[in-house]
Amino acid sequence: MGQYTAPLRDMQFVLHELLHVEDELKQLPPHADIDAAIIDQVLEEGGKFASDILFPLNHTGDREGCHLDAQTHTVKTPKGFHEAYKQYVDAGWPSLSADPEYGGQGLPLVVNNALYEMLNAANQAWTMYPGLSHGAYECLHAHGTPEQKELYLPKLVSGEWTGTMCLTEPHSGTDLGMLRTKAEPQPDGTYRITGGKIFISAGEHEMSSNIVHLVLARLPDAPPGTKGISLFLVPKYLPRPDGTLGERNPIFCGALEEKMGIHGNSTCQMNIDGATGWLIGEPNKGLNAMFVMMNAARLGVGMQSLGLTEVAYQNALAYAKDRLQMRSLSGPKAPDKPADPIIVHPDVRRMLLTAKAYAEGGRAFSAYVALQIDKELKHPDEAVRKDAEDQVALLTPIVKAFMTDNGWIATSEAMQVYGGHGFIAEWGMEQYVRDARINMIYEGTNTVQSLDLLGRKVLTDNGARLRKFGAQIQSFIEENGLDETMSEFITPLADLAEKVTKLTMEIGMKAMKNPDEVGAAAVPYLRVLGHLVYAYFFARMAKIALEKQGNGDKFYISKLATARFYFARLLPETAMLIRQARSGAAPLMELEAELF
Amino acid sequence: MGQYTAPLRDMQFVLHELLHVEDELKQLPPHADIDAAIIDQVLEEGGKFASDILFPLNHTGDREGCHLDAQTHTVKTPKGFHEAYKQYVDAGWPSLSADPEYGGQGLPLVVNNALYEMLNAANQAWTMYPGLSHGAYECLHAHGTPEQKELYLPKLVSGEWTGTMCLTEPHSGTDLGMLRTKAEPQPDGTYRITGGKIFISAGEHEMSSNIVHLVLARLPDAPPGTKGISLFLVPKYLPRPDGTLGERNPIFCGALEEKMGIHGNSTCQMNIDGATGWLIGEPNKGLNAMFVMMNAARLGVGMQSLGLTEVAYQNALAYAKDRLQMRSLSGPKAPDKPADPIIVHPDVRRMLLTAKAYAEGGRAFSAYVALQIDKELKHPDEAVRKDAEDQVALLTPIVKAFMTDNGWIATSEAMQVYGGHGFIAEWGMEQYVRDARINMIYEGTNTVQSLDLLGRKVLTDNGARLRKFGAQIQSFIEENGLDETMSEFITPLADLAEKVTKLTMEIGMKAMKNPDEVGAAAVPYLRVLGHLVYAYFFARMAKIALEKQGNGDKFYISKLATARFYFARLLPETAMLIRQARSGAAPLMELEAELF
Repeated sequence: MGQYTAPLRDMQFVLHELLHVEDELKQLPPHADIDAAIIDQVLEEGGKFASDILFPLNHTGDREGCHLDAQTHTVKTPKGFHEAYKQYVDAGWPSLSADPEYGGQGLPLVVNNALYEMLNAANQAWTMYPGLSHGAYECLHAHGTPEQKELYLPKLVSGEWTGTMCLTEPHSGTDLGMLRTKAEPQPDGTYRITGGKIFISAGEHEMSSNIVHLVLARLPDAPPGTKGISLFLVPKYLPRPDGTLGERNPIFCGALEEKMGIHGNSTCQMNIDGATGWLIGEPNKGLNAMFVMMNAARLGVGMQSLGLTEVAYQNALAYAKDRLQMRSLSGPKAPDKPADPIIVHPDVRRMLLTAKAYAEGGRAFSAYVALQIDKELKHPDEAVRKDAEDQVALLTPIVKAFMTDNGWIATSEAMQVYGGHGFIAEWGMEQYVRDARINMIYEGTNTVQSLDLLGRKVLTDNGARLRKFGAQIQSFIEENGLDETMSEFITPLADLAEKVTKLTMEIGMKAMKNPDEVGAAAVPYLRVLGHLVYAYFFARMAKIALEKQGNGDKFYISKLATARFYFARLLPETAMLIRQARSGAAPLMELEAELF
Repeated sequence: MGQYTAPLRDMQFVLHELLHVEDELKQLPPHADIDAAIIDQVLEEGGKFASDILFPLNHTGDREGCHLDAQTHTVKTPKGFHEAYKQYVDAGWPSLSADPEYGGQGLPLVVNNALYEMLNAANQAWTMYPGLSHGAYECLHAHGTPEQKELYLPKLVSGEWTGTMCLTEPHSGTDLGMLRTKAEPQPDGTYRITGGKIFISAGEHEMSSNIVHLVLARLPDAPPGTKGISLFLVPKYLPRPDGTLGERNPIFCGALEEKMGIHGNSTCQMNIDGATGWLIGEPNKGLNAMFVMMNAARLGVGMQSLGLTEVAYQNALAYAKDRLQMRSLSGPKAPDKPADPIIVHPDVRRMLLTAKAYAEGGRAFSAYVALQIDKELKHPDEAVRKDAEDQVALLTPIVKAFMTDNGWIATSEAMQVYGGHGFIAEWGMEQYVRDARINMIYEGTNTVQSLDLLGRKVLTDNGARLRKFGAQIQSFIEENGLDETMSEFITPLADLAEKVTKLTMEIGMKAMKNPDEVGAAAVPYLRVLGHLVYAYFFARMAKIALEKQGNGDKFYISKLATARFYFARLLPETAMLIRQARSGAAPLMELEAELF
């Protein structure tokens, strides 16, 4: 029933050889003491937990799903989920990257991020329970009052309590400005919250003793639209000042959604029936407060698809080495066997390498972004923090959309390696495809990400953020432009960088005349930038591999071949994408809605 | 819970205005009397059956699935399936395109094909029950003895009995040469069949009184590999000479597969335990006999994805007109409502138009291929039959692989239009994606189709078949080359045709040195040819639309916009595909299997 082994060697390559995180973290006072050995040890332990505890619950969790007892409003999670969570808490994993002031271990996000890749690879549905808690922790940590932090953060950090984000309502998804949940101020300073929320991941379960819901709602005098939304803390059980649990707050799971995937996670419709809540941050500034959580969540969604890509790849690879079917077109490769293992066939290799390249490219890229977040939060120099913040702003929608689109492609290719068996639940591959599908939707659909990137991150500052990141690519191109062995990577990278500059200017010009040009170009544009970033990181990784390929560690041979595959077979997508992005709004907009 | 309306107007456009089937059928003596009015009437009735009877069972069938009673070896299909089948039989649909000699109505395949689009759109899982019967009918009709035909065909034609194809075994999927099921000759001229088969669609159910299994097996003295495979007729109940049912033949469903989709179809593991069978065709020539069935099945699989594309499009369109969310970037379009319907957003239109264009392109293309099959089978002139046969050989793998890849893309885009609701089973969209996934796998994976196309259909005759089809495109280009209004279509079509010629020659040259070059190029090559064919049909459709757009029927405005969208946003995929196809085998083959 499948396998998962944490890709520790590649993680070490990315963290130590590519990004030199030890040196980078020395610049960040709270993390200055963290060395490579500590990081490797954490990841090794995390990998064991993922493989040994979570992975065996993945397929069974999918089959069993969650069940609501409508009488008691309790949700039963799949067998083993609760116990695994207890082990997770006992081992201290929830606190890994949390603030030591509240009981955290204070490790950087770049390490936590790698942990989450492994947890998600082993069991995305399970990982969403602690994953959302971590988001709630970050939001409260950034915007809570000292009292709120004192009361809630230690419990969230320890994992004793978990958290959720309650945003969506039936008529209000992408368009949060339309939400209707009400918050009425009470004489004691609390708020009485009433409304209905949908799609609340981990909204109800018995894995933790309390659930801290962060709920978006409107105050009575709130202006319409997004400027009238406030954020409230609405715990399932009202905590007493000493942290013990008081009475049940009327925020109940009314129904569980039947979904395409992530069956092990309880996706709840929440009925909020005059529940007691506390304001977080300023009135009517709820979206600002929530954005902290949403940015972290977007990186987290990227890691979900990275995990699925990796585990789907590992299983498809094992199958391709084992399954005997047909002979190689260039002559038998296993003449002693009744047929060759299917890994001899070029197109099977194309499918495998697609998943491998998207896993390795995504791992490098997302680790880089996580490290920028650590810098944004912890670097003593404001200019460095600002630079990192700009990079994070620019790259986060790419992490979310590009990595989840790639995860969909990669899991589907990995499933295809199995032929008919891929469609059969027992082999586990089709679950990865189903689970991967939600990642393109939630935390802002990939269309929304592309509009955020092109409209808000690139065009509003006339491309300044993009140019800054581009300068980094440019200096790498110049450093290596005379190196013959690097030309197979540098030439296409430089070519693409130039095309991106032109494309961005062209869209910018068109958008000034017609804002729909942004919407027409945004989705292919985001994928073009994704490829630019991956090409850059693959070129950097290839450089290291070229330098070390003679040292006897075959890892570098493999890395080099993956980079070459990426440039030969995946990067050419940009030729399509640029044409699509340039084709403009007219072919989309000319037809009246009634004539569709 | 969704909707489906048969796209009769577009079917009429394709059959009458684009392909002029009435004129074409006049050339085929058995179909010479069939006029447009008859065809339209059949399709209208078929559309009603699909919408009224089958569509309401689709979602419930998916949720309920099939259930095996292991004691009695009986399979219970979802509620309503049996009754719908009875209505289908009572209305005479199984006999639509069958031979009048055996009770058929003798309509051409091009009409049956259009019927199957509608049945599949309404309920793919259900449609597989009669669909496989039709394949069994065709195989027996082509290769059965007069006695076999006399006994079996009338029952298959009426729908009283259904059929299956029993090919796959656990260790033998694509590689049929490895199959092990045994057939021992008996003194009475029958064969005793023993073995195990998997993935047998519609392998057991109670919808028909008997099931006619066509089973591939080996005779005792059979040579190894594909040259030692024979085809056997193995009925569930042994029929007496008068057609009444005798004793139960020991071919039993041992288990049902749990699958990603098509839950309403019973996918069986079949245990064949000394069952009585009759040889069909020559000993050891079973694959030849089966190929009749497989070619028809490949067209049928294309129609499955076409149906799913259409129904997914219709539902996404209705949702996009209804769902209010955000304002258009170019200013409010529904100022009286709290937000604009999401069809105002360019990227929502891109998703919708992707599905619309793939539906309309696939409808034109598959109808053309079905008409070629009618000509291949029924035209009095041998040269015309041979020409049609060549076209069918060339185009069938494109129908199967290109249309099913497009179905996967289109259903996923249609699901994405729904945002989070797309992931929820209740809305029905995620089922289309799950159902569409199998079509890329069964009846020969899409990789196998691509190898068939490039290796067997294009390179073996040095591109003669392709040139013949290309000449048809070329003459269209020349006829319209001076028409200014057509240049937006003719220019890119001519450009692509030229590139295909060069690409084919280049791959042919490389393949002479290294056969793995075929495997490396085949998948993108097939999609390039698919786009060439779609570009050709969209250009032809655009020509008609340009001529008629002023006549007040807004259908032509819509058709023209769809063609423009296709050229602007979908055809550019060829820029990627050609680069991929040209990148060669090295980036796929250089890495040793152990270093993956």
